[in-house]
Amino acid sequence: MLNTWLSAAKLLKEKGLSPVVLEARDRVGGRTFTVRNEQTKYVDLGGAYVGPTQNRILRLAKECGVKTYKVNEEERLVHYVKGKSYPFKGSFPPMWNPFALMDYNNLWRKMDEMGSEIPREAPWKAPHAEEWDKMTMKQLFDKICWTSSARRFATLFVNVNVTSEPHEVSALWFLWYVKQCGGTMRIFSTTNGGQERKFVGGSSQISECMAKELGERVKMESPVYKIDQTGDMVEVETLNKETYKAKYVIVATPPGLNLKMHFNPELPPLRNQLIHRVPMGSVIKCMVYYRENFWRKKGYCGTMVIEEEEAPIGLTLDDTKPDGTVPAIMGFILARKCRKLCGLTKEESTNPQPDKNTNPQTSLSQPVHYEEKNWCEEEYSGGCYTAYFPPGILTQYGKVLREPVGRLYFAGTETATEWSGYMEGAVQAGERAAREVMCVMGRIPKSQIWQTEPESVEVPAFPFVTTFWERNLPSVGGFINFLGVASVLSVATAAGMLAYQKGLLTRS
Amino acid sequence: MLNTWLSAAKLLKEKGLSPVVLEARDRVGGRTFTVRNEQTKYVDLGGAYVGPTQNRILRLAKECGVKTYKVNEEERLVHYVKGKSYPFKGSFPPMWNPFALMDYNNLWRKMDEMGSEIPREAPWKAPHAEEWDKMTMKQLFDKICWTSSARRFATLFVNVNVTSEPHEVSALWFLWYVKQCGGTMRIFSTTNGGQERKFVGGSSQISECMAKELGERVKMESPVYKIDQTGDMVEVETLNKETYKAKYVIVATPPGLNLKMHFNPELPPLRNQLIHRVPMGSVIKCMVYYRENFWRKKGYCGTMVIEEEEAPIGLTLDDTKPDGTVPAIMGFILARKCRKLCGLTKEESTNPQPDKNTNPQTSLSQPVHYEEKNWCEEEYSGGCYTAYFPPGILTQYGKVLREPVGRLYFAGTETATEWSGYMEGAVQAGERAAREVMCVMGRIPKSQIWQTEPESVEVPAFPFVTTFWERNLPSVGGFINFLGVASVLSVATAAGMLAYQKGLLTRS
Repeated sequence: MLNTWLSAAKLLKEKGLSPVVLEARDRVGGRTFTVRNEQTKYVDLGGAYVGPTQNRILRLAKECGVKTYKVNEEERLVHYVKGKSYPFKGSFPPMWNPFALMDYNNLWRKMDEMGSEIPREAPWKAPHAEEWDKMTMKQLFDKICWTSSARRFATLFVNVNVTSEPHEVSALWFLWYVKQCGGTMRIFSTTNGGQERKFVGGSSQISECMAKELGERVKMESPVYKIDQTGDMVEVETLNKETYKAKYVIVATPPGLNLKMHFNPELPPLRNQLIHRVPMGSVIKCMVYYRENFWRKKGYCGTMVIEEEEAPIGLTLDDTKPDGTVPAIMGFILARKCRKLCGLTKEESTNPQPDKNTNPQTSLSQPVHYEEKNWCEEEYSGGCYTAYFPPGILTQYGKVLREPVGRLYFAGTETATEWSGYMEGAVQAGERAAREVMCVMGRIPKSQIWQTEPESVEVPAFPFVTTFWERNLPSVGGFINFLGVASVLSVATAAGMLAYQKGLLTRS
Repeated sequence: MLNTWLSAAKLLKEKGLSPVVLEARDRVGGRTFTVRNEQTKYVDLGGAYVGPTQNRILRLAKECGVKTYKVNEEERLVHYVKGKSYPFKGSFPPMWNPFALMDYNNLWRKMDEMGSEIPREAPWKAPHAEEWDKMTMKQLFDKICWTSSARRFATLFVNVNVTSEPHEVSALWFLWYVKQCGGTMRIFSTTNGGQERKFVGGSSQISECMAKELGERVKMESPVYKIDQTGDMVEVETLNKETYKAKYVIVATPPGLNLKMHFNPELPPLRNQLIHRVPMGSVIKCMVYYRENFWRKKGYCGTMVIEEEEAPIGLTLDDTKPDGTVPAIMGFILARKCRKLCGLTKEESTNPQPDKNTNPQTSLSQPVHYEEKNWCEEEYSGGCYTAYFPPGILTQYGKVLREPVGRLYFAGTETATEWSGYMEGAVQAGERAAREVMCVMGRIPKSQIWQTEPESVEVPAFPFVTTFWERNLPSVGGFINFLGVASVLSVATAAGMLAYQKGLLTRS
């Protein structure tokens, strides 16, 4: 996320330093990417959503005069499962089967409980770090979930949040990820959660605004291929044959993209190996445009949670402009489904639109326009939204994630401790790295490197209130144990009564 | 392994083409690295071992006049476990506890059985590919093994063979890896296996010999940072500011090191993501030198299989020269233990010699010299011996591993189908890629791209003969089931006899 680079540079410039930003692409924004055209006015092909507790990106947006608007969630959402649509209200689809209800409830509660043990700034220090890091999320779900419907939804939950599969990611890492976003409710919700809002005019405006302020300091189409720390100044060379010299360098790519650079001297062994071990997720973002947002008239808000192996899209959200113009539905093609499409030939995969048979909301209207972005093909992102940690990596390599190497400091949303993986994390990381540099230059004390952020006035966060039943409903396992105990008790009681009646027991 | 590059170039030159080899380092050999000095005469700090069925590298060695010698396995081996040394003969430590024996026997048999289902050229097409790829080897061991001693040894087996941890690697990938080396016996054995021999004078001689033959065509210290396929010729730029133009390019780095290059046009999405997903293992190779090989006089060959969490070294082999001079023991520091040492400061980790308290063979003699190589710090290897596949990657990305991209062809031992990960695999891959280029140039038919190799006369392979008991001993689970059935049968029989005697059963 170029937000990282730019927010670091912005802060350094404000403090009187002279940063230069080297941008690989011909545009700023990184994993945010706002495209403007006649059909869409503007569209975010990359990072777009923002919500309460993401106070740093909200601050930057406000400074740039970029406003937010709420993603439409007025009408009913739809849960599509086993070939049928179930309308609902709230963050998660409700369960009617009592076993499934207990199982779902226990799943979210358990994940949040485990997350509460994990330090956001050092997940490798969690009491069960070793044990959980040796497990994939699939293993954990197989342990926690009793019903196939909970396991299936849990898979979608991983797909949607980190664009990878439960069997690919470390349980420790995923539990940390959800925790540092504020828990299962905050990360998955639209209202009061990570998808509550979008930026009017598109998210890249924030990077563009910062880039404008930095002016000539931002060098476009300048991919760095060499960083040499052997001299008095750090020397950085770019593909367009420029050489830059600096006292300090902030490397603000995803960790894996450090590999695009040749280092002299070589990176220390753990960092040299870490950067081969943290791949980016897989996602295609699609936008389908219609003449009218007919779904609202039918009482649907446009959100669909789709559990159907044959459907390419796993989650949709209304993408209509805040003034009601340009009716559109946004959909994510996630993880295994994204790779399946990547593996097809151009002819086979052209315009992977939402399958009309599995999408009752769109079947009544024909799309008038289509936009998509496959992030797997981006050399300078490697994928989206963010890097994931396969099993075993976080405990063995996590501690070097943002450990400086000589005069190199590391930013990028992957190094954040709040909303890592999001625009918010990119800003936290960029500002923290900038303050690390200021600290080593003697301009600020060490205690000021990490700073908390006051809450946004415009986008306040509300606590998620849990009900008595959410807190106390047993898990399926707990319920079965309870039944077991209860039936033993009742049998024992009945037997006791019988024995007493028959005079087999004597009072002492 | 630079063997790949050089063996490709050698073949192309022999066929009248004009290959140029761009070598990142100031030496050839890649993951083989022979150092010469007074104390050691010569020492292989990287890939060194060679054995029967590795016929391509044996052919190249013979052409270069490089001879092999047998690694000493005359005397007894030692299995060090739970603080005690157990001398033994054979490939695997024997088990005395009957449950452990059944469990070990079943473990190797099961892995080879599963391996037999996996096509070596397309493991993603195995009947259970999806299921096994979603599992780590740890999960598989937890399923197969009943005893902690089998599980512990299984962990060492993964550590030794692929320098990573069972919970890090896909079960499908590891089972494929063992299979394409010829099975559990072939991969792990010294005599008749992958560690049977070393090259007199060191393994890098083969690369050096080929490089000499290619002469000026080999460009040293020329790391490639850019490959441009947009013009009539492929343009390749190197860090030392040279530009090379070629009709075709063979990329012979480990897959992950493709990332050191900036591609124009970008790589296709699946390859762009694959190269972030296949990290290299972690190993430090150590050599300790003594005045005499006192272990042989005590009846030990120098091989130690060490299961002890506190001991850094997991496997040792005699590294004395074939003429009996320069007595030495080679040891591997593997996976988690390697990373632990990498994480220590210089002072803490200097000379990680075998712990004398846990190594009865060395306690009687003082080392006179020490050599080590930490492969994790090598920017242009990323680790050693080879790349591993975390869960989920082989089925989703495996098929693009050696799929050409425009005029780029892919070699490197990771793309081999026999002894991938070894010098042998590097040669197979290099020659195959060279023939792919010759095929697309119309010089050979497609049917000649893949070629089998006649067996080495000097290093013949012998089949591993399994005993009746190895084939038929039950697993612990099978034995318990058998006991269960047997006891039910015996109870039923006894009850039947009793009933008959008491006249409860009447003959019809």
